[in-house]
Amino acid sequence: MTGIVQTSQKRLVLIGGRSHPELSEHVAKELGVELVDTQAYDFANGEIFVRFEESVRGCDAFVLQSHTEPINKWIMEQLLMVDALKRASAKRITVVMPFYGYARQDKKHRGREPISARLIADLFRTAGADRLMAVDLHTAQIQGFFDGPVDHLFALPLLVKYVAQHIDRNEITVVSPDAGRVRVAERWTDLLGAPLAIIHKRRDPDVPNEAKVFEVVGDVEGRICVVIDDMIDTGGTIVKAAEQLFENGAKDVIVAATHAILSGPAKERFENSRVRQVIVTDTLPIPEERRFDKLLVLPVAPLIARAIQEVFTDGSVTSMFEGDRV
Amino acid sequence: MTGIVQTSQKRLVLIGGRSHPELSEHVAKELGVELVDTQAYDFANGEIFVRFEESVRGCDAFVLQSHTEPINKWIMEQLLMVDALKRASAKRITVVMPFYGYARQDKKHRGREPISARLIADLFRTAGADRLMAVDLHTAQIQGFFDGPVDHLFALPLLVKYVAQHIDRNEITVVSPDAGRVRVAERWTDLLGAPLAIIHKRRDPDVPNEAKVFEVVGDVEGRICVVIDDMIDTGGTIVKAAEQLFENGAKDVIVAATHAILSGPAKERFENSRVRQVIVTDTLPIPEERRFDKLLVLPVAPLIARAIQEVFTDGSVTSMFEGDRV
Amino acid sequence: MTGIVQTSQKRLVLIGGRSHPELSEHVAKELGVELVDTQAYDFANGEIFVRFEESVRGCDAFVLQSHTEPINKWIMEQLLMVDALKRASAKRITVVMPFYGYARQDKKHRGREPISARLIADLFRTAGADRLMAVDLHTAQIQGFFDGPVDHLFALPLLVKYVAQHIDRNEITVVSPDAGRVRVAERWTDLLGAPLAIIHKRRDPDVPNEAKVFEVVGDVEGRICVVIDDMIDTGGTIVKAAEQLFENGAKDVIVAATHAILSGPAKERFENSRVRQVIVTDTLPIPEERRFDKLLVLPVAPLIARAIQEVFTDGSVTSMFEGDRV
Amino acid sequence: MTGIVQTSQKRLVLIGGRSHPELSEHVAKELGVELVDTQAYDFANGEIFVRFEESVRGCDAFVLQSHTEPINKWIMEQLLMVDALKRASAKRITVVMPFYGYARQDKKHRGREPISARLIADLFRTAGADRLMAVDLHTAQIQGFFDGPVDHLFALPLLVKYVAQHIDRNEITVVSPDAGRVRVAERWTDLLGAPLAIIHKRRDPDVPNEAKVFEVVGDVEGRICVVIDDMIDTGGTIVKAAEQLFENGAKDVIVAATHAILSGPAKERFENSRVRQVIVTDTLPIPEERRFDKLLVLPVAPLIARAIQEVFTDGSVTSMFEGDRV
Amino acid sequence: MTGIVQTSQKRLVLIGGRSHPELSEHVAKELGVELVDTQAYDFANGEIFVRFEESVRGCDAFVLQSHTEPINKWIMEQLLMVDALKRASAKRITVVMPFYGYARQDKKHRGREPISARLIADLFRTAGADRLMAVDLHTAQIQGFFDGPVDHLFALPLLVKYVAQHIDRNEITVVSPDAGRVRVAERWTDLLGAPLAIIHKRRDPDVPNEAKVFEVVGDVEGRICVVIDDMIDTGGTIVKAAEQLFENGAKDVIVAATHAILSGPAKERFENSRVRQVIVTDTLPIPEERRFDKLLVLPVAPLIARAIQEVFTDGSVTSMFEGDRV
Amino acid sequence: MTGIVQTSQKRLVLIGGRSHPELSEHVAKELGVELVDTQAYDFANGEIFVRFEESVRGCDAFVLQSHTEPINKWIMEQLLMVDALKRASAKRITVVMPFYGYARQDKKHRGREPISARLIADLFRTAGADRLMAVDLHTAQIQGFFDGPVDHLFALPLLVKYVAQHIDRNEITVVSPDAGRVRVAERWTDLLGAPLAIIHKRRDPDVPNEAKVFEVVGDVEGRICVVIDDMIDTGGTIVKAAEQLFENGAKDVIVAATHAILSGPAKERFENSRVRQVIVTDTLPIPEERRFDKLLVLPVAPLIARAIQEVFTDGSVTSMFEGDRV
Repeated sequence: MTGIVQTSQKRLVLIGGRSHPELSEHVAKELGVELVDTQAYDFANGEIFVRFEESVRGCDAFVLQSHTEPINKWIMEQLLMVDALKRASAKRITVVMPFYGYARQDKKHRGREPISARLIADLFRTAGADRLMAVDLHTAQIQGFFDGPVDHLFALPLLVKYVAQHIDRNEITVVSPDAGRVRVAERWTDLLGAPLAIIHKRRDPDVPNEAKVFEVVGDVEGRICVVIDDMIDTGGTIVKAAEQLFENGAKDVIVAATHAILSGPAKERFENSRVRQVIVTDTLPIPEERRFDKLLVLPVAPLIARAIQEVFTDGSVTSMFEGDRV
Repeated sequence: MTGIVQTSQKRLVLIGGRSHPELSEHVAKELGVELVDTQAYDFANGEIFVRFEESVRGCDAFVLQSHTEPINKWIMEQLLMVDALKRASAKRITVVMPFYGYARQDKKHRGREPISARLIADLFRTAGADRLMAVDLHTAQIQGFFDGPVDHLFALPLLVKYVAQHIDRNEITVVSPDAGRVRVAERWTDLLGAPLAIIHKRRDPDVPNEAKVFEVVGDVEGRICVVIDDMIDTGGTIVKAAEQLFENGAKDVIVAATHAILSGPAKERFENSRVRQVIVTDTLPIPEERRFDKLLVLPVAPLIARAIQEVFTDGSVTSMFEGDRV
Repeated sequence: MTGIVQTSQKRLVLIGGRSHPELSEHVAKELGVELVDTQAYDFANGEIFVRFEESVRGCDAFVLQSHTEPINKWIMEQLLMVDALKRASAKRITVVMPFYGYARQDKKHRGREPISARLIADLFRTAGADRLMAVDLHTAQIQGFFDGPVDHLFALPLLVKYVAQHIDRNEITVVSPDAGRVRVAERWTDLLGAPLAIIHKRRDPDVPNEAKVFEVVGDVEGRICVVIDDMIDTGGTIVKAAEQLFENGAKDVIVAATHAILSGPAKERFENSRVRQVIVTDTLPIPEERRFDKLLVLPVAPLIARAIQEVFTDGSVTSMFEGDRV
Repeated sequence: MTGIVQTSQKRLVLIGGRSHPELSEHVAKELGVELVDTQAYDFANGEIFVRFEESVRGCDAFVLQSHTEPINKWIMEQLLMVDALKRASAKRITVVMPFYGYARQDKKHRGREPISARLIADLFRTAGADRLMAVDLHTAQIQGFFDGPVDHLFALPLLVKYVAQHIDRNEITVVSPDAGRVRVAERWTDLLGAPLAIIHKRRDPDVPNEAKVFEVVGDVEGRICVVIDDMIDTGGTIVKAAEQLFENGAKDVIVAATHAILSGPAKERFENSRVRQVIVTDTLPIPEERRFDKLLVLPVAPLIARAIQEVFTDGSVTSMFEGDRV
Repeated sequence: MTGIVQTSQKRLVLIGGRSHPELSEHVAKELGVELVDTQAYDFANGEIFVRFEESVRGCDAFVLQSHTEPINKWIMEQLLMVDALKRASAKRITVVMPFYGYARQDKKHRGREPISARLIADLFRTAGADRLMAVDLHTAQIQGFFDGPVDHLFALPLLVKYVAQHIDRNEITVVSPDAGRVRVAERWTDLLGAPLAIIHKRRDPDVPNEAKVFEVVGDVEGRICVVIDDMIDTGGTIVKAAEQLFENGAKDVIVAATHAILSGPAKERFENSRVRQVIVTDTLPIPEERRFDKLLVLPVAPLIARAIQEVFTDGSVTSMFEGDRV
Repeated sequence: MTGIVQTSQKRLVLIGGRSHPELSEHVAKELGVELVDTQAYDFANGEIFVRFEESVRGCDAFVLQSHTEPINKWIMEQLLMVDALKRASAKRITVVMPFYGYARQDKKHRGREPISARLIADLFRTAGADRLMAVDLHTAQIQGFFDGPVDHLFALPLLVKYVAQHIDRNEITVVSPDAGRVRVAERWTDLLGAPLAIIHKRRDPDVPNEAKVFEVVGDVEGRICVVIDDMIDTGGTIVKAAEQLFENGAKDVIVAATHAILSGPAKERFENSRVRQVIVTDTLPIPEERRFDKLLVLPVAPLIARAIQEVFTDGSVTSMFEGDRV
């Protein structure tokens, strides 16, 4: 037999985009590695340049980028990093997107729209991604948009655990703020043993055209309502939901969500509302000016680091979420 | 300039699989065409043979197959037909699947499962399909599983219209039988101007392990409950939901769903229940032995035929569903 | 250099579909492994669900399924298993199909037919298969239908060895039952040092239309004819061939084939014929009711197990079939 | 509705490679078109340059190249032409290869070989070919190597018709020169109503190692043997077969084949043999120095032209070969 | 023959992204069409939404976007528009990018970099683009990055014509500002019959490390130097080149370039320099605050409109640039 | 956990095509391996057959072929070898092409031409290549034509080092023979600290039509001109350039290029010219009859071997070329 024979080795490397350096560093620390030394900067016209300062040949590479604002820029940077890894002979490339950008456009609501969440999956595939890792996808079906393995992590245990430790379960009613979140709300009711209510948007029969009224379906009187959602953007819907809950006799309202976009008027809305607390994770960076007193941020890095570890060592990511019971 | 120049023509052809000949013929009749003369039979070991008896070269071909039992056989037959069309130089191939098989497995519920609905989309793409047409997908995200245009038709107007004509709207409460159908239920409430309730499955706090209790969230006392769903399989969940509604004081229960699988004990369950009527369409064939007195079947062929017509003539399928108001 | 470095390991896992559990278990036993614990069942409407009960991340997975009746169901199950493996991050997926379904439709016999054997290869590629393994393909060209490595195993040595041990070679004439099997027949003649005859189907010059007569080309008088084929389906052709051989003076007729489909009237036909023995392998399950006294079944598991072993250890499958000499 | 609307036109163009200009021109003449004015020449180091001198935008382009010697050069030229057409926005590109190069390597005979015929199909697909057209493929399975429509033309009627007009059918025995041609031989026997014989190569039982003897299976005494084949390369096998036939009492031997490679010693072999006539077509160019008195060349251009016409006008190529009866 | 037959029509539609509405409208006006009514806006977190307000089914769609700042946003918007067109059944999608973003990163300058220009081509291919159209690519090789037709338009005639009309040719020397532009400079010299000079950057032999000196190669004394480039970004290099030319005795310096990025200090630099005039086109929008007195902007819309017209009518884009002679 | 677990190994194998056996053997020797025993021969009609005589399953295979004349033949042989490796389950396939055939056709110079260099990249990708390795690509953009890693090696240090050791740097002027080589010439000036000149081809203003004159831009009087190029084909341009340099007062002319095609009249041209020396590498075989006294051939095998070694051991190829300083 001709040739040279060697024992194979595998090497994990972690690369961080520029959108959320704190998170990348936190994950690196949890894993006990250094981030790959990476050059990344903008040209005068906004084009991005990236370069890795050490060899990544044959590596099992994880590229972490938070899809925060300016979101299209950070997506492009991550695509460029994946392309650079592919051309630099990385062996396997896992795209880690704690928050999956464009996840909300996961179907055509009407005709002649893109299905942006599928496009994102295809763009990363084209750039060279072998696998995706994301936290709390807007809909679980998005896993099927990528032609390869997707590791879907859940921040749910993190959030539920916190709520369970700080609020009397017997007083809690879990509230889904719209029709799309009822499934996740059911997982909360299972873990907490609490009842369910939902906010239903209905065309107002008394007003012509498209006016909608919010209706609470289920009983919330005297209850501590935990309104759950996957993300908080401008906070508009969720604050309106909270008002409706108070009008229906709720004793208190707490909001729990994984992704804290908190764009535009979110801060002011929550501050001016009767919502007691807003519990989120740091899948997205939250700049000082968007933070407010009621906001509590739980760290997501341990979750991501553990999942990366499982992937690298051919362990099981699924088992991380089995048998959750608070 | 060399060569031969001709004015282009386009030709629509309709091909029917063997699973639901009545529907194919009904659609053909609505379109005013003959079905393409097609040979299709099984070899002794179950392998399927298909052949078209006329040229389909350059055609705009629509291949209709209902994914009914034995479902894997009919999916394979449709795949073979698409392959034969591709190799016979059809210009464009549209797969018409009134009921999209395996649509329920649209995500990994736990680890190490297939995403069968995506696989189905990919298999048809591989065989040569250029586009898909389906009625009432289990989740709208399935559109994003296919790498090409998907025409998503809605039987909703058909069903709502019937209900609106036969039942006093003021008495109706629309009921979602589980968390996954709340969105569709909201579209019913919008069209009917009716209130909403949902059936919530919750872990029983008094019983250990996995026992679940059904809870009605929302007010149904004295109401005519219209329980809506995309498909009725064994009818188990929906009949249990109906019982729960009657226990909560419902005056009457009507079930409306697009796809009538009606497998196993469905007939008996409905016959033995207090459900007044079950309204469905004929996207799937319903053999005599599965029919029962309370069952009302609305024809879906006009809808499909009109959509095919729009596709062929470069019209708009979307506009078929705009401005629906009963 | 950043990152975590580890020595790589590889792990072979064997997965069995539901079509032929005896074979899967026999192969597992030969390999000295347990089958991966797998959930697989049908929903009421015939849709299949599969799930692996242990992690397969990073594995070298072999998925064995026998394409027996209901053939489309078992093909779909195998496709779903491959999809599940891909999404569960198996490193390499080898589809083991002892009998390759739809292999006979390996070309368009006339216009507007599918090339089903190519479609099957493409479907498995799409689902995520990296390689195929099959026993005695209907035509060797099918290897070229798959865009990747194909391990083509031969049961020939197994069958020839048995014949050589039980029948006097000097009396044997190898018979090809039709034009398509002459090549394989020649390999038998090489191994046995026996003469060749073929059955030729010819349009009857005395009868109009499509009537065909069977003609024996070659000398069979007083010979023990070993009629060879890749598969026995209904047995019609082969029994008719046997009759023709007896009419031409054959002393005895033995049938040897790899794949025992034995559908429909096969059992009865052989029982009522003068064929002395039918020698096959168990690439397909043979239920009790299709077995008959003259039937001899040789186990194919040792062959498959050895090939899997060679693939896993980067050995040579080709060398398994070199220098065959009985 | 915005935009500009026009009636669509389609335009057929025919492009000829440099390998067999007589055939391209003959086909053009049959079609009544001029060949597209094309620049094609070699650079000093053998690289080929091609350019079309008129616009081919939106065309239905047919690129004809005969895969004759130097075969790799002409295949590359055809690939370059297809690439140029693709980049010049041709609407559809059909590769016309009267003789399909590398067709004989349609499977791995042993391990670690290419499947060259599949590679050729893939290379043309990659370059941009939408469809293939070929005459008398070495095996019909090659159709399945291309992921798209393949028009498989048969020179059989041409050859059979000539034989039938010049030789008394009652005296004819059709002979397959080896195991691989028996199927085609059967089509001749059907059309001519003649009996069949085959030449069987067998390991010589009296000589060790790999010595092979030729054996005539079937009766040829006093017959006019028409030895048929798809191609004649060096003529070695076929001339040896002819000798064997004469030794077995054949009255005369005629050879009929579609593709006249006639390489190396072919001319001399036939001249020195007792073969009466060699009937071929001009799918390959036959230079003067390879021609000999016994050689008869039938023109294949009318066949190809008619097929191109059918493809362009969305007619049926299959029907060209139906109901053949001499 | 079954089915419905119609004469085919084709319909051109033009879609404009939000980056450079003046250009889209100008092109539309030149073509005599309205832009497709398009909804496009940003969500609070920066995600883009697009929707076409009229059917585009079966259309020949041209999507024009100028890759100006914020460049990643506009690229993503164009990708989303292409995806929406694909899913809305447009027949053919041409991406019109007057300035091709990321064109400068057309190779790895050192290791572990992306080849961003190829990535851009692949992203558009994946989204669904059938063809690209661009003006003055940074390097002509970029055409080869796209797997399909690319229409490469040249603003050269536009610019040369202006210069020729306003400056005495006998006084002109064409200057390439660096090694990469010499080829284009040669085309200017051909059209103007003028001599050539180039600015050469060389490592200073007297200074260690990486200091570079600018050297004028060629004779510029007393000449009107026309410095040509494909794009002007910050203007740094080109202004330094101009200084060097004046130092070498140039009488005057004029700058001509296709793409006016004019980012950062460009305006100030040119204003403070002795450059007499800067001639550009409007492939990119030039906001008021970046304009300056010496800047002359030539409209590129007629060029683009004519190319679109040629593509739609299957004319020739190449011929638009043949025989250019001022 | 089921299955069999083993430590992974990797094995490098080197395969040489038939075009340049000396180079393959030299590289093998540098690596300390034997070439894989390979059968490769031509059939009578020019079709190539290849087969590896030992198992390559699981290997890291490097296939070296020099794209020399007959170039299309050797490209096809390399494609067939890659296909054979893919089907024989090689783990990774690197195509080593010291000279990249068709690299000069890296763009459409006018309309309706192929982009042959992209086609070559796509053909190898299709055959199964995972990565490419090449020396001194005609343009660096060609890296972007391959959808995967490309290792671009530079012979520059080799050539510069030789020149620096044999010629006084203070006398050298580096000359680019045309506009396309200026960039590479600049790298020479950097390494040697020498000035630059270029040969400019210009339309002769005094002669109508397409006549071109050669003009030396830059100062060459009394200098030793080192004319650099990536390849020398017929030598026509370069010898004419040399004449022009002498006419402009050059003291001496030396030519340095990586790829020595030396086709047709090259030898005679150089012998009859005043060029003092021609320095090349052996990326291409140079038969005795093309060699001449002034020709100096430097061995490229050490460079290639080292790069292969780096790739196999996951080292860095880039670092081989960093910090080059003569």
